[in-house]
Amino acid sequence: MSGVIEHKMTESDLTYLFGGARHPIADVLPGQVLSTSTEDCFGGAVRSTDDLPSRVCRQFNPVTGPFRVPGAEPGDTLALHFIAITPARDWAMSATFPHFGALTGTHTTATLQPPLPEVVWRYDIDTAAGVVRYHARRSDYTVDLPLDPMLGTVGVAPAAGEARSTIVPDQHGGNLDTPELRAGTTVYLGVNVPGAMFAFGDGHARQGQGEVCGVAVETAMHVTVAVDVIKGVSTPWPRIETDHQLISIGAARPLEDAFRISQHDLVTWSAALTGLDVLDAYQLVSQAGRAAPGNVCDPLYTMHAAVDTAVLRGAPAYDGTHRRLRELARPVG
Amino acid sequence: MSGVIEHKMTESDLTYLFGGARHPIADVLPGQVLSTSTEDCFGGAVRSTDDLPSRVCRQFNPVTGPFRVPGAEPGDTLALHFIAITPARDWAMSATFPHFGALTGTHTTATLQPPLPEVVWRYDIDTAAGVVRYHARRSDYTVDLPLDPMLGTVGVAPAAGEARSTIVPDQHGGNLDTPELRAGTTVYLGVNVPGAMFAFGDGHARQGQGEVCGVAVETAMHVTVAVDVIKGVSTPWPRIETDHQLISIGAARPLEDAFRISQHDLVTWSAALTGLDVLDAYQLVSQAGRAAPGNVCDPLYTMHAAVDTAVLRGAPAYDGTHRRLRELARPVG
Amino acid sequence: MSGVIEHKMTESDLTYLFGGARHPIADVLPGQVLSTSTEDCFGGAVRSTDDLPSRVCRQFNPVTGPFRVPGAEPGDTLALHFIAITPARDWAMSATFPHFGALTGTHTTATLQPPLPEVVWRYDIDTAAGVVRYHARRSDYTVDLPLDPMLGTVGVAPAAGEARSTIVPDQHGGNLDTPELRAGTTVYLGVNVPGAMFAFGDGHARQGQGEVCGVAVETAMHVTVAVDVIKGVSTPWPRIETDHQLISIGAARPLEDAFRISQHDLVTWSAALTGLDVLDAYQLVSQAGRAAPGNVCDPLYTMHAAVDTAVLRGAPAYDGTHRRLRELARPVG
Amino acid sequence: MSGVIEHKMTESDLTYLFGGARHPIADVLPGQVLSTSTEDCFGGAVRSTDDLPSRVCRQFNPVTGPFRVPGAEPGDTLALHFIAITPARDWAMSATFPHFGALTGTHTTATLQPPLPEVVWRYDIDTAAGVVRYHARRSDYTVDLPLDPMLGTVGVAPAAGEARSTIVPDQHGGNLDTPELRAGTTVYLGVNVPGAMFAFGDGHARQGQGEVCGVAVETAMHVTVAVDVIKGVSTPWPRIETDHQLISIGAARPLEDAFRISQHDLVTWSAALTGLDVLDAYQLVSQAGRAAPGNVCDPLYTMHAAVDTAVLRGAPAYDGTHRRLRELARPVG
Repeated sequence: MSGVIEHKMTESDLTYLFGGARHPIADVLPGQVLSTSTEDCFGGAVRSTDDLPSRVCRQFNPVTGPFRVPGAEPGDTLALHFIAITPARDWAMSATFPHFGALTGTHTTATLQPPLPEVVWRYDIDTAAGVVRYHARRSDYTVDLPLDPMLGTVGVAPAAGEARSTIVPDQHGGNLDTPELRAGTTVYLGVNVPGAMFAFGDGHARQGQGEVCGVAVETAMHVTVAVDVIKGVSTPWPRIETDHQLISIGAARPLEDAFRISQHDLVTWSAALTGLDVLDAYQLVSQAGRAAPGNVCDPLYTMHAAVDTAVLRGAPAYDGTHRRLRELARPVG
Repeated sequence: MSGVIEHKMTESDLTYLFGGARHPIADVLPGQVLSTSTEDCFGGAVRSTDDLPSRVCRQFNPVTGPFRVPGAEPGDTLALHFIAITPARDWAMSATFPHFGALTGTHTTATLQPPLPEVVWRYDIDTAAGVVRYHARRSDYTVDLPLDPMLGTVGVAPAAGEARSTIVPDQHGGNLDTPELRAGTTVYLGVNVPGAMFAFGDGHARQGQGEVCGVAVETAMHVTVAVDVIKGVSTPWPRIETDHQLISIGAARPLEDAFRISQHDLVTWSAALTGLDVLDAYQLVSQAGRAAPGNVCDPLYTMHAAVDTAVLRGAPAYDGTHRRLRELARPVG
Repeated sequence: MSGVIEHKMTESDLTYLFGGARHPIADVLPGQVLSTSTEDCFGGAVRSTDDLPSRVCRQFNPVTGPFRVPGAEPGDTLALHFIAITPARDWAMSATFPHFGALTGTHTTATLQPPLPEVVWRYDIDTAAGVVRYHARRSDYTVDLPLDPMLGTVGVAPAAGEARSTIVPDQHGGNLDTPELRAGTTVYLGVNVPGAMFAFGDGHARQGQGEVCGVAVETAMHVTVAVDVIKGVSTPWPRIETDHQLISIGAARPLEDAFRISQHDLVTWSAALTGLDVLDAYQLVSQAGRAAPGNVCDPLYTMHAAVDTAVLRGAPAYDGTHRRLRELARPVG
Repeated sequence: MSGVIEHKMTESDLTYLFGGARHPIADVLPGQVLSTSTEDCFGGAVRSTDDLPSRVCRQFNPVTGPFRVPGAEPGDTLALHFIAITPARDWAMSATFPHFGALTGTHTTATLQPPLPEVVWRYDIDTAAGVVRYHARRSDYTVDLPLDPMLGTVGVAPAAGEARSTIVPDQHGGNLDTPELRAGTTVYLGVNVPGAMFAFGDGHARQGQGEVCGVAVETAMHVTVAVDVIKGVSTPWPRIETDHQLISIGAARPLEDAFRISQHDLVTWSAALTGLDVLDAYQLVSQAGRAAPGNVCDPLYTMHAAVDTAVLRGAPAYDGTHRRLRELARPVG
């Protein structure tokens, strides 16, 4: 571990794009640990149930970055091992937003019906108890849900010179909105430009699978992440490794294509790791695999495919990068 | 509990349709327990890796039934509490089937590419150890996976006089292919015709979420099920209750519509059970819910939406039917 | 031409299913001409703008039939050459129907928004002038549109013993809702049961491509059709031949699958007719083909793919069946 | 008409992005006519049937631009009236490209099947006769198709600072790939950045509806276009006006969403132009409208919705911009 970069995030460190001409806000070398923080998807502007996002926000989903990784080149893979993702506040916000979400007509699933009402919910975060408290708006119903902090948005600059809104998930990562992106995991992203230019944000105190209303339990986060680069190894779609499983993520519409991408990647990745024939791997993942949606509301939907590493008899992905980063991170996290 | 019906299944008890003119193979009264068995989706014709399904099978997915429930009328709900689902053999089969499955062009996702090869896998079932053993076809790779028996297909006669192939999942149930349909759960199905005319089959020793190659670990099953009817209560889409969660199932294409149906049902069901406003329930399910695909290969795809009953503060569904059937079943199961 | 069957339609000749146990209402021999009539999709119950379909109708989309064609066997193709499709009334009705249509949440594209208002429109049909007159409901705007009579629903009994609602389009035909199904065309349908058991109805004085609000300009029709059977030739999806073009129809969701099916069928059919290699036919249809939606509102969406027979250098489909039926029909039509 | 800008296109005038930091290659004032040319989607590198695109091309779909329109501001509408689109060569190329097109698994409709063979076709263009000649690759079949020149790609810089590959169609226009974009039409695009920054290219000597194999009859073009800006009027999705019809274009996946967007825009636009209530306009477009796919192969699919201006009783769109540009263009075209 060659050191810890403490980057105190300020408003000028927030961006709404992956890619484009924006200068990096800091360099992080392979092997270094970065400690910084992120704003929520409202840029902190929604603080009470009276703050309607459509009125108080001009833009959505700021991320902290981009950070440049000297030495990362197109064709390499960036590994981001999240050591800690910790709420920076004791409250979080959610909302319904007009024509956004899975159970309403939208911008593209265009209907002639009026939008659902715009309503805001405020949650209490109790980090010690490990819960977030839901309060109904139209009754006094409350209930505690497990605190399960994650980052909705992690990505690098896209390929082909594109610059993409941070609302969008795609091959470069971005707004994946999957609850699997927790502390303790390593995210792998294919590098498309020199320096990779990664950024992250959109912390969720928790979210349901599919993020059906379009907005999670949104809060600012403190984030500690170990950074590494796997040279000469490309990664077609975002992947996550945990201590016990490998996860592939697809982003597409319709949702079955997000499913297909994630399963295709997991099958071919499993075959490569184990030496199994591709059809044998197809069969094995079909019986042993898990699958779930991340979001079914963003410009592209996401699904993940997961398999236990035990099913693959422990074949190490990316030459053991996850285990190595985990070990290195120990004194820090 | 007003008794146990032992129905010894023979080939003439198998059907390939839900609905239609077929006579019931037996009557089961509300409150009775039925004990019978089911064939696998190949009708038992695929027994070795040399038995290609396209050659040895003329039809697929036989179910045992229909059973008539005297007193069940359109507008009621049929409750099937599965007390036991136990493999009837110590082996199971799987396969790739031409132009079937999620990672191939199909009948409707029509492409000009040739089909994937048709390959058959044979699994060993070790009920005592609680595992199924996978054997690769093109190497000597083997691995044990947890035994997790379920029924892929459970349904009633459809509405509007339709008769549907047992390959199809829809509002009447049918080929849901969800691993959530295990022993210990209660399945709720809306009744469309007098007597409900239910049937089930398509046992899986286990399956991955999404059943990506199109075929699970297929085997014959012994099934014990307690039957009840909830009068005057309709059920729009198949639902499952476990000891700790409520589950709604949607069947549709594209996959986001299966997601929408299941989430819409879970949100409105949760609102009805708790007295929450619908938007409050939308918010709560968005943060607390789980979602996963059952199949992404059948004529309609399935997804389920689930929420812990604790999140709903214990509001009893269907007036406590699940708990009641579970209690009644205890001496039997 | 071996004669004309005049079948005076009465209410007992209407059915809401393709397939099932219903007895044929008449036999029509290959080579015979059938003259009968059809009700509109409301069964004639919607006659003024005050007749809301959700109140005055219990069922939708009656068709006249089934007619049995002695000698037609599974694996054959039924040819229906429509000699005349003529409005039986000087008025027609349309409507928005709750949660039905392309620009609203539906049963499966389930949203939490309230439905659009249910509104009924009444059109005047002027057969002599060849127009239908639209009247706005909330202003005095009127405009004449070309009269272009067609049948929304033409089908045979489905395969595998299924019985399907007449609302559904699929491989057996059914509720195709394509404006291409006009007088002067020959419809080809694969035969699934002895006697084919065909039926038709759902006349439209005209409809837009895609039937976006879910309901066309609905009216009763007088129909004259020449019937033939092509022995030993199967037809995978509904096809239409006109004097100058070949048309393949796909029915599926999502809409791209309806597109894929129709294009796949047209490409492989064109290759078979011309002797072109399949990739050469793929290229030719890609540049010369036309494509449009029939409906984007029914349980399965439909699209058609069309190519001019001149592009295929006149290769005769089904051994010249269309031309032959057209000639034979001349004295009748 | 305040003059004609002759811009002789060179390779440095080609770009593969809409938006981003690239400097405009020229300014065009509102009211001016621009005359320039475009390369084909292969950048001219595919000239014989031996030139496989995957080998001879590094990038695809260059467009000429961007051109800046001084005075165009976000919230305005750019009007591009295409006076002439004329093939610059007497040949054109098409191809199948691995994992691209509607009848093959793709990057996102990920399957495990091998790709279709990569094959190239060369067409002869006979401008005087108005035909393009198709030659089969695996037989001596040839046939002439009507020459119908169009531009596949016309767009402006996207909103929110995004830079998008020219392969992508979306709200900013881009790779719409619709045969409706012919000479004689006016294209309307919402302006997102000062100067609009428009570009165009991807000429097709003709294409089928849906561009099913993924590649049209690709050729370089000479293009003459009159440019105007409608101040203070926004345009949500690309629109086209011809002498006799209004056309709205949607770009989305699944294909039904492209349909929904285009129909929603045409319905609400028609209502605004005629004063019709929105439901009355929904009904009218449902019966009078036409719909067809542009492409079913690009990252987003496109469909258009069209209605005759006569059906709208001649209500002038954009204050008569199309008619005015057409008149002004007369001495030029």
